[in-house]
Amino acid sequence: LEPIYSLKNPRVKEWAALKQKKYRNQTGQYLIEGVRLVEEAIAADVEIVQVLASFERTNERLDQLLDQVRAKGIPVTECSDPVLAHVADTQTPQGIVAIAKKPEPVDGFLDMSQANANLVLLVDGIQDPGNLGTIIRTADAVAADAVFVSDNTVDPYHPKVVRAAMGSLFHLPVLEQSLPDRIDSLRQYGFQIIGSSSHQGDVYYNVDLRGPHALVVGSEANGISQELEPYVDKWLRLPMLGKAESLNAAIAASVMMYEVVRQRAR
Amino acid sequence: LEPIYSLKNPRVKEWAALKQKKYRNQTGQYLIEGVRLVEEAIAADVEIVQVLASFERTNERLDQLLDQVRAKGIPVTECSDPVLAHVADTQTPQGIVAIAKKPEPVDGFLDMSQANANLVLLVDGIQDPGNLGTIIRTADAVAADAVFVSDNTVDPYHPKVVRAAMGSLFHLPVLEQSLPDRIDSLRQYGFQIIGSSSHQGDVYYNVDLRGPHALVVGSEANGISQELEPYVDKWLRLPMLGKAESLNAAIAASVMMYEVVRQRAR
Repeated sequence: LEPIYSLKNPRVKEWAALKQKKYRNQTGQYLIEGVRLVEEAIAADVEIVQVLASFERTNERLDQLLDQVRAKGIPVTECSDPVLAHVADTQTPQGIVAIAKKPEPVDGFLDMSQANANLVLLVDGIQDPGNLGTIIRTADAVAADAVFVSDNTVDPYHPKVVRAAMGSLFHLPVLEQSLPDRIDSLRQYGFQIIGSSSHQGDVYYNVDLRGPHALVVGSEANGISQELEPYVDKWLRLPMLGKAESLNAAIAASVMMYEVVRQRAR
Repeated sequence: LEPIYSLKNPRVKEWAALKQKKYRNQTGQYLIEGVRLVEEAIAADVEIVQVLASFERTNERLDQLLDQVRAKGIPVTECSDPVLAHVADTQTPQGIVAIAKKPEPVDGFLDMSQANANLVLLVDGIQDPGNLGTIIRTADAVAADAVFVSDNTVDPYHPKVVRAAMGSLFHLPVLEQSLPDRIDSLRQYGFQIIGSSSHQGDVYYNVDLRGPHALVVGSEANGISQELEPYVDKWLRLPMLGKAESLNAAIAASVMMYEVVRQRAR
């Protein structure tokens, strides 16, 4: 097959459109950029529709990755570097971009009917892609069961979120859903809903977090939304000992997640 | 005085040059952008050389802030919006940019001769301005005594760091310094040097962190540098329970800082 050189090629236009949420939602597909992230996606058995690779590549690690891709039966399309740069959100996608399928929405409670699940995140309005990616990365690190994301949150399949999550997006379910609906379902499984705050509640390390808990993470500017506040069963206060008024949202969420780890290890 | 309209005005060029580290170092000055941050700087008694304000402003909060600025004897120069946008790193500096003086380097041990100090941060190679700003914000939140920054770290007075720190840069000393020199000085005051890791050391919450400690924060890509590794007295391991290989550097540092808070509250 001929490599693709033209930015006007209709397939190139379709791929580049995946930088926009609208087209990700229409197609159910998203972009994974760079050698490291595509390696992670392959290792995690993410469903990949197609891989675009630079025919100008001179990178052995990339060649090995493409062997793996082909061995999985995933089609590889060779492109010029300008075509790849046009499709990608990063300026240097390191010779490779994968087109992946978003996971299907889940109606029921994942595998939580098996009652192993005990920590989920409910992200309520985070706007910064770096913050959401970082939250997903920490959720993976603490082996949380899932991350549910409200529709007023940045799209978790935005290329900048995919990048900041450093592969963790492929390691646990990250799903868009109405949070009140999800909370109803979580409560049936005995979950308590917790939210962090700089001004209300008991100091977080004095609250028993060993049972199943769902942590609501509010937006950078406004915290947990008015709609969701009534659902919070326990407020956990993060002590502010200096002059800062609050923490970065990803930091606050991560301190909470590691407190859960600490308590459950006892 | 006439407002400044021209981007070619030599003073405008000098101010805009403060977006570059070279000119910040030459002049010892840096930029503070936006109403909220300048309010924080005024409240924290940061030394401000001059304030640039949009003469097109229609914002009452900004007018009140300018009254405070003038009451402190700080000169205010009126500029057109394009001039302000040119000087600022943000696209919308909300009608105000302050030119502030960086704090003087400190030879001795701050006020630590008073032996109150017990937590300092040593930042060794962080490149992302958002990460450094976030670390400074958490350091403020836990009432750390100071943040020392190596010269291979992003400049803490970079406008993006100033912004991400959300005012915390004005609340505690943030100083560039050779970290080995600083460590020598810290040890004389009984400090132990700690570093976090995803693969070595005791699990962090099992290590006694109540005495004076200095936390080394390594770079996003490479962790703590080879030069600094031999100085680390205790490695603290952050358990990785899922499939993530490591945490974001600001997250790891913040989890450690809040563990110090938890242990010292007992």
